[in-house]
Amino acid sequence: MTDFYELTMANGYFLSGKKDEIVYFDLYYRDVPDRGGFAIFAGLKDIVEYIQNLKFTEEDINFLRTKNIFSEEFLKYLKDFKFSGDIYAMPEGSVFFPGEPVMTVRAKAIEAQLIETYVLAVFNHQSLIATKANRVVRAAKGRVVSEFGARRAHGAEAAYKGARAAYIGLVTSTSNTLADVLYGIPASGTMAHSWVQMFDTELEAFETYCKMYPNNSLLLIDTYDTLKQGIYNAIKAFDNVLKPLGKRPLGVRIDSGDLAYQSKQLRKILDKAGYPDCKIVVSNSLDEYSITALLEQGAKIDIFGVGERLITSKSWPVFGGVYKLAAIEQDGVIIPKIKISESVDKITTPHFKQVYRLYENGKASADYITIYDEVVDDSKPLEIFDPYAIWKRKTLETFEAKALLIPIFKKGKLVYKMPDLLEIREHVRKEIDSLWEEVKRFDQPHNYYVDLSQKLWDCKEELLLTERKN
Amino acid sequence: MTDFYELTMANGYFLSGKKDEIVYFDLYYRDVPDRGGFAIFAGLKDIVEYIQNLKFTEEDINFLRTKNIFSEEFLKYLKDFKFSGDIYAMPEGSVFFPGEPVMTVRAKAIEAQLIETYVLAVFNHQSLIATKANRVVRAAKGRVVSEFGARRAHGAEAAYKGARAAYIGLVTSTSNTLADVLYGIPASGTMAHSWVQMFDTELEAFETYCKMYPNNSLLLIDTYDTLKQGIYNAIKAFDNVLKPLGKRPLGVRIDSGDLAYQSKQLRKILDKAGYPDCKIVVSNSLDEYSITALLEQGAKIDIFGVGERLITSKSWPVFGGVYKLAAIEQDGVIIPKIKISESVDKITTPHFKQVYRLYENGKASADYITIYDEVVDDSKPLEIFDPYAIWKRKTLETFEAKALLIPIFKKGKLVYKMPDLLEIREHVRKEIDSLWEEVKRFDQPHNYYVDLSQKLWDCKEELLLTERKN
Repeated sequence: MTDFYELTMANGYFLSGKKDEIVYFDLYYRDVPDRGGFAIFAGLKDIVEYIQNLKFTEEDINFLRTKNIFSEEFLKYLKDFKFSGDIYAMPEGSVFFPGEPVMTVRAKAIEAQLIETYVLAVFNHQSLIATKANRVVRAAKGRVVSEFGARRAHGAEAAYKGARAAYIGLVTSTSNTLADVLYGIPASGTMAHSWVQMFDTELEAFETYCKMYPNNSLLLIDTYDTLKQGIYNAIKAFDNVLKPLGKRPLGVRIDSGDLAYQSKQLRKILDKAGYPDCKIVVSNSLDEYSITALLEQGAKIDIFGVGERLITSKSWPVFGGVYKLAAIEQDGVIIPKIKISESVDKITTPHFKQVYRLYENGKASADYITIYDEVVDDSKPLEIFDPYAIWKRKTLETFEAKALLIPIFKKGKLVYKMPDLLEIREHVRKEIDSLWEEVKRFDQPHNYYVDLSQKLWDCKEELLLTERKN
Repeated sequence: MTDFYELTMANGYFLSGKKDEIVYFDLYYRDVPDRGGFAIFAGLKDIVEYIQNLKFTEEDINFLRTKNIFSEEFLKYLKDFKFSGDIYAMPEGSVFFPGEPVMTVRAKAIEAQLIETYVLAVFNHQSLIATKANRVVRAAKGRVVSEFGARRAHGAEAAYKGARAAYIGLVTSTSNTLADVLYGIPASGTMAHSWVQMFDTELEAFETYCKMYPNNSLLLIDTYDTLKQGIYNAIKAFDNVLKPLGKRPLGVRIDSGDLAYQSKQLRKILDKAGYPDCKIVVSNSLDEYSITALLEQGAKIDIFGVGERLITSKSWPVFGGVYKLAAIEQDGVIIPKIKISESVDKITTPHFKQVYRLYENGKASADYITIYDEVVDDSKPLEIFDPYAIWKRKTLETFEAKALLIPIFKKGKLVYKMPDLLEIREHVRKEIDSLWEEVKRFDQPHNYYVDLSQKLWDCKEELLLTERKN
């Protein structure tokens, strides 16, 4: 899957003698979804697998030949195509900020170009959902969040890959069985309204379910009338079926109506009936905003099932990641490249770069982008400045600097041990713990500093001046 | 890919003797995206292929066994599982409205339940994108719209299946090569900014491209400065390379800045340089609203490349389709079923149904939902009424009634000749032509009538009253 222009350009590089020219592309984004303070990087696993398996089949090449614009030499070259370059990236699950490379590709021009579309599609989708899911999880303030969105995702793949991204964003579980099969994300679920409707009465539906799943009895109680019959039928089923077995109910779920009011009523009714341990699960178009509002109103909710607004990131459904040429190599020398354009926010930061995260007392204070081989000496004070307002300066006296971009591929070989999903979640937890609360705020969070080194800033300014004159 | 609760319910139906009970499920939606007047149905092809190929592998069953909640008899049953029911649906590309079934599944309870999640994911995604794409196409008022969104889609599958849905929504082409390979949707594209950056000068980049693709020379002119150098370098390349070959340029593209102002300037410059036939292509976060605004301001644009806002339906990224039990069969008798719930818009319309579209003078006046075996006699006047305000009545004197739900599967066998993509597009064109302009308006469109027959309305009212008392 690639945009057609990647192929016309690749053929063009091939014919104009540029096929082996080394280039540097950066993967980054411009705006944090939902005007939040940070994003979470997801998708590296799929990107790595794609790079490892990328090839052109005979059918692919025959298809391209029918377009009558590709040279036979190029088509022949594609037959043996494989990625042979270097890739540096932040680990999956990293917190990252606008304008800094989360991944840099150093490869032959054709190789770096052809992977663009797929890399972006995966990166944009999965980082979007991981970032959104984490907002929802943080809004729930320690309560369980389960991902329920499969049916409203942008197709089946967006559903199960979205479930994985949501798990990276620290949701507890998913409704999606395939995400459990493929990734080991705990899938759960008990009944839909159709189960209740299939029986002559709601009580019969509930009792039958409790008999079959005495250890897993979570009943959906809003098919007819939650507070007048649903909850009482549920309690009857718990009393009639579970009590004699010595089992406790798992919970009740509501999927409509006023969740704050109903949950408070349900809590009272359940407590009074001797089920203070029975969990209250709610779903119905939830997101970080509605969960915050529910909790502010004192809703008694233990588990949030979050569907369409998480799996599509409904309030901000486009991540906006880009993949831009930052440099080329000529005779082994790196030549930084810039793209200017009319929109200031579309100006790129040139050169092969490294990103350092600067910590003070264990908390991340700023990210500091340098030319790849600059050394950040954290034994001495460092003055940093806002690249868009260079009079805004700050000196870090005692800090630690950590390089964030690490080698993933070298000469086409994977040199990175891919972490498993639980390790990625652990990394996410540590990353988020390292942020100031001000950066995590939903409403107008602190604008985390992403600064350029003096050397890199100088390089960018010089190119800005010279390229406008070309 | 299925939600876990489909499996717990299926196991439950199996164990409670309901596995062969015949049920009816309706697929429908509640709100038109972007508060538009209608939606376009897409996804039937994938649904049909899914139904035909649905089975449980040995690995699937082993996975389920590890959950320790499914009975061995049920797991054994899944080994030979195949869909053996009936499916009725509107043809892909049909215009359809909220609250009416676009598809009805009549099948054994387990079969109908297990297909829910996948059917919804496909339906919701593809109908969303087809509907959005058609809005964009209508906003462009006859100008070419090309789908450019692959990199911002919710993953690779959402990109190429989204491209197909966009093509059903009547875009002209796509940037996505895989959509061309799989579906024959014409893929096109020429260059990105990286092409321009790869050469020492913009002029060299343009001249090289024109030499290589003299029949396909569409140049991206905003890498450095569109109106001061990009357009003049393009014209130089056309003059120096294409003119001697007797070739005409295809166009110029801009992807940033003020598209209205720049396109007007570009048109003047190109006309003056002897290239009045050179097309102006624009991209950059376009949708039906920005295209409408650009055209109102007299922008001189021939081709719109529409990316993220189409492929994610950014302004309304969730279609909201549902799949609800409408009836069961007992001893061959259909028993209508209702779901009530606190939210009025979540109340279902019970029974096995048919949807008629009522045409007056070739224009669609209303959809009319009946019980499946009611006959609509269009030789006599018909009084219809608003099911939510039954005093709103209208009598159609001369009209034609067309049944919209047609058999797709009978006893698990495909009985429908799947149309190809061009036939689907032809169907979409006819469907849209049959709508009043008032229904197609973006801003507060006429609320198209979707009425219930008296018989169906009576059935629903009766169930509403009785079920609240259960």
